[in-house]
Amino acid sequence: MNYKLTLCYEGARYRGWQRQGNTPDTVQARLEAALEQIAGQPVEVHGSGRTDAGVHAKGQVASFHADTALSPQELLRRLRAALPEDIGALALETAPERFHARLSCTGKTYVYRLWCSERPNVFDRRTVQVCTDSLDETAMRQAADFLIGTHDFRAFCGNPHMKKSTIRTLNEIRFTHTGEELQLWFTGNGFLQNMVRLLTGTLLAVGRGALSPAETALILDGQLPCPPMAPARGLTLWEVFYP
Amino acid sequence: MNYKLTLCYEGARYRGWQRQGNTPDTVQARLEAALEQIAGQPVEVHGSGRTDAGVHAKGQVASFHADTALSPQELLRRLRAALPEDIGALALETAPERFHARLSCTGKTYVYRLWCSERPNVFDRRTVQVCTDSLDETAMRQAADFLIGTHDFRAFCGNPHMKKSTIRTLNEIRFTHTGEELQLWFTGNGFLQNMVRLLTGTLLAVGRGALSPAETALILDGQLPCPPMAPARGLTLWEVFYP
Repeated sequence: MNYKLTLCYEGARYRGWQRQGNTPDTVQARLEAALEQIAGQPVEVHGSGRTDAGVHAKGQVASFHADTALSPQELLRRLRAALPEDIGALALETAPERFHARLSCTGKTYVYRLWCSERPNVFDRRTVQVCTDSLDETAMRQAADFLIGTHDFRAFCGNPHMKKSTIRTLNEIRFTHTGEELQLWFTGNGFLQNMVRLLTGTLLAVGRGALSPAETALILDGQLPCPPMAPARGLTLWEVFYP
Repeated sequence: MNYKLTLCYEGARYRGWQRQGNTPDTVQARLEAALEQIAGQPVEVHGSGRTDAGVHAKGQVASFHADTALSPQELLRRLRAALPEDIGALALETAPERFHARLSCTGKTYVYRLWCSERPNVFDRRTVQVCTDSLDETAMRQAADFLIGTHDFRAFCGNPHMKKSTIRTLNEIRFTHTGEELQLWFTGNGFLQNMVRLLTGTLLAVGRGALSPAETALILDGQLPCPPMAPARGLTLWEVFYP
């Protein structure tokens, strides 16, 4: 049977989504260990994509095949009991045989949360990035307009050896505010390694006045170097889309 | 100079507000250590009241006298740098000589957060109490009406040796919802030890059908025993009022 699992996690404790050798400190490793314990057999899960070390997820999706007599409800109940407290199984359903969390994915939304205040935020401190510099949001929105659309995002890819296509469509960069928090929402058909953090780092450089909005187009063209990426802490994979 | 400090903290790591011998694991001890380091002299702080071990605060208030040449802005900046990441100094101002965080206090609001879902909430797990029992909110609101007003709340006091008056005025118990979360807001002129957690435990017993709303009045009268108090984790001291 093929399953579609929706899950959330606080990434602070993990070296990212992807299994790495024998370390238990990845989300995939914890999830596979929990499923193996329940199913009594090794289970390989496929995430919609990797998240970097320290990045969080509100709605990551994974698919896996398992051979079990348990109902999805019972499997979900046992999975919730077996997972650590910073990984949460939100929903589990059976899926068509051809469903694959990464290959079937048609888009994603990420949010980057910026805490724009000297006042400490102790309750959200693990999931927001503090930014006390004054930011020119008008300039940031202008820069975002240069990034939206279908482009070769090679300049915003953290993997210098990327052999596959680096062309992606960025549908929207939305700016929202909640009190002293600024959220940047990125929606696109796919994201390269570190891409959202590199885009955020560039928008922050524009917001601080270190770059002009138009220079964003030069970074995209490879004529200017990309500013450093924003820290993992502020980034959350919000939602994954399927047809 | 007398100061009024507003602070927040995540209570999970602490044995409550009040200093206890030489342990550094109380909020007061951490705050006094930070202030002593900055002022170069011992500083005694007075909180608006004690919070139990594990209870959080969004707007606790403390007062203290200190002899320093620093401006309040600079003192606040240094205090933020000296405090651990789960204690945040929100605001600091000079106060009239007679201001005392506990003695001048005219009221407080607490919120008890209940996460009413099987779906795990990994991001707020330290500050909400999971409650997956189905709750009869209409009955809980009826029970709340018996508790509101000026009463002897001795039955809702965790200290059996309390010698001072146990008469308090509970102005309001408000019910609000955010998604799968139910919040109970308690506002009154003062609260006894464990009082909000005992009131919440009683409202939950009514919500689950273990008590009728009218039996709440019998608990208040000492004719029925008070149900167990709700866990500390879900409770946050929200705001402290002054004239």
